[in-house]
Amino acid sequence: MTIRIIVTGGTFDKEYDELTGRLYFKDTHVPEMLARGRCLLDVQVETAMMIDSLELDAAGREAIVARCRDCTETAIVVTHGTDTMVETARAIAEAALAKTIVLTGAMVPYAFGSSDGLFNLGSALSFVQVLPPGVYVAMNGQHFPWDRVRKNTAAGVFESIR
Amino acid sequence: MTIRIIVTGGTFDKEYDELTGRLYFKDTHVPEMLARGRCLLDVQVETAMMIDSLELDAAGREAIVARCRDCTETAIVVTHGTDTMVETARAIAEAALAKTIVLTGAMVPYAFGSSDGLFNLGSALSFVQVLPPGVYVAMNGQHFPWDRVRKNTAAGVFESIR
Amino acid sequence: MTIRIIVTGGTFDKEYDELTGRLYFKDTHVPEMLARGRCLLDVQVETAMMIDSLELDAAGREAIVARCRDCTETAIVVTHGTDTMVETARAIAEAALAKTIVLTGAMVPYAFGSSDGLFNLGSALSFVQVLPPGVYVAMNGQHFPWDRVRKNTAAGVFESIR
Amino acid sequence: MTIRIIVTGGTFDKEYDELTGRLYFKDTHVPEMLARGRCLLDVQVETAMMIDSLELDAAGREAIVARCRDCTETAIVVTHGTDTMVETARAIAEAALAKTIVLTGAMVPYAFGSSDGLFNLGSALSFVQVLPPGVYVAMNGQHFPWDRVRKNTAAGVFESIR
Repeated sequence: MTIRIIVTGGTFDKEYDELTGRLYFKDTHVPEMLARGRCLLDVQVETAMMIDSLELDAAGREAIVARCRDCTETAIVVTHGTDTMVETARAIAEAALAKTIVLTGAMVPYAFGSSDGLFNLGSALSFVQVLPPGVYVAMNGQHFPWDRVRKNTAAGVFESIR
Repeated sequence: MTIRIIVTGGTFDKEYDELTGRLYFKDTHVPEMLARGRCLLDVQVETAMMIDSLELDAAGREAIVARCRDCTETAIVVTHGTDTMVETARAIAEAALAKTIVLTGAMVPYAFGSSDGLFNLGSALSFVQVLPPGVYVAMNGQHFPWDRVRKNTAAGVFESIR
Repeated sequence: MTIRIIVTGGTFDKEYDELTGRLYFKDTHVPEMLARGRCLLDVQVETAMMIDSLELDAAGREAIVARCRDCTETAIVVTHGTDTMVETARAIAEAALAKTIVLTGAMVPYAFGSSDGLFNLGSALSFVQVLPPGVYVAMNGQHFPWDRVRKNTAAGVFESIR
Repeated sequence: MTIRIIVTGGTFDKEYDELTGRLYFKDTHVPEMLARGRCLLDVQVETAMMIDSLELDAAGREAIVARCRDCTETAIVVTHGTDTMVETARAIAEAALAKTIVLTGAMVPYAFGSSDGLFNLGSALSFVQVLPPGVYVAMNGQHFPWDRVRKNTAAGVFESIR
């Protein structure tokens, strides 16, 4: 089984720009994270975009859906900013692909010492191997069907709805 | 669903003793790792022992089996040294418990910058939620039934057999 | 010899706010850094303010000068944002105190894995013990008299002038 | 001013061998540490040996002395295991070189998250620029003349004698 990892940016991949003092995107850390996890899964990593998910518009979201549809893999992990992760999950779900698609991200950039990114990546890659076809969000060690989750922005966590 | 985490030590939890220059065990890092992963699963962490799995004898292994049997949870993650992880998995499997039990560990101590521990913990906690009852090893992003895996000690990875 | 450490904030002490995705100040990391450096110097740490040095105005700068003047120690390290570090060094120098005062900071927050903060703190604490009275900037492993240094903002480093 | 850095191994440069579970030496981390410290000093790094200082014999010690004597630089930092650092300092001092030579090391390997190595390297590089000719040990933020220091092995720190 090959797993496709589609990188879209998000907190996950933010870095600190020491000249401006701001956070920005350069390259994805996913390959480095896979190496650190001694991951031996057969994965294909592609970078769709490197943006803050608050800046993701309908066209960008449609591009992610198209990549999910067009790749040959049926197990897909999408790394994504947490702010609009659920919205993108819905857009993918509406495409009704017969695939297992898991979105994940991080609350703290991987480049920081205290990031949850490595935990979440290990979690998402595990869920995608065993969950039935559908679209899911994997955060906080949990997995949620796309239509039963929301981000609690005050607490900085994902929670079940209904 | 409550998940029981049974800590047994292993590389996962080794620390550096700056007085002797040797690796040793103090307390488990699992609670700190769960906090870092912003894990919101309902977990119960217990420390069964803190030892190198090469030093685990039949009595120690039986103590782990007993804890798996006696706890009320049906989803269990066992953190364990990699050297005899498969042997302990077999001992647990022979107890024929109607539970999902996932063993995991690390090649590099969590206290080191380059540890795979957080990735593996995220992975094991995810597998244990969705795999059917049975005993599994979760390492390298993969999961293996207990009787179809071995540690390749030369490469430092787990691989499928048969 | 007691060394006074006056904390003013700066990149050194910035943290990542996982709810807003922005950098902010909470408590100083200096005590944690001293512990990590196994520092056995007799130090007194005080927090004068926790701000980005771009927001430091004349009144704030005067408050730092006053603390340098009023403390009983004659060896002082000031942790400071790099953007206006030289300006504050000048303000302190104009007070003509008979003390050795070393300003230092960081290009990357200590909370990030790749920070230069620990290196710079070790450097500043060493220079302050052996340099003659005067006001200095210690960055990039170097020390500069206050009137012979500028920050090269394009390169993100401090360099000698004249 | 060019500073010569002579690497001899020690805890500073130990790494974790994930196949054997033991600590070992590969390459020195000093260049990586200098990069992380954004160090702009003119330094020449050479590796004399990569060993635990408990294994350093008279011949090895003489080789270090020879390198201190033969290099053209008059400011030298020697990275060294802490256990016999003072002994090597004495051997260098007996050569009566007209140079400033600072020995430093670490209680915890740089590759571990909690290492004091970066702090100590920043400290040693600073002391070597400003101390008069002589042989010194720089540890715990302090500097000691070679004949007035010992390692307190019970506490894991260096302390002044006489």
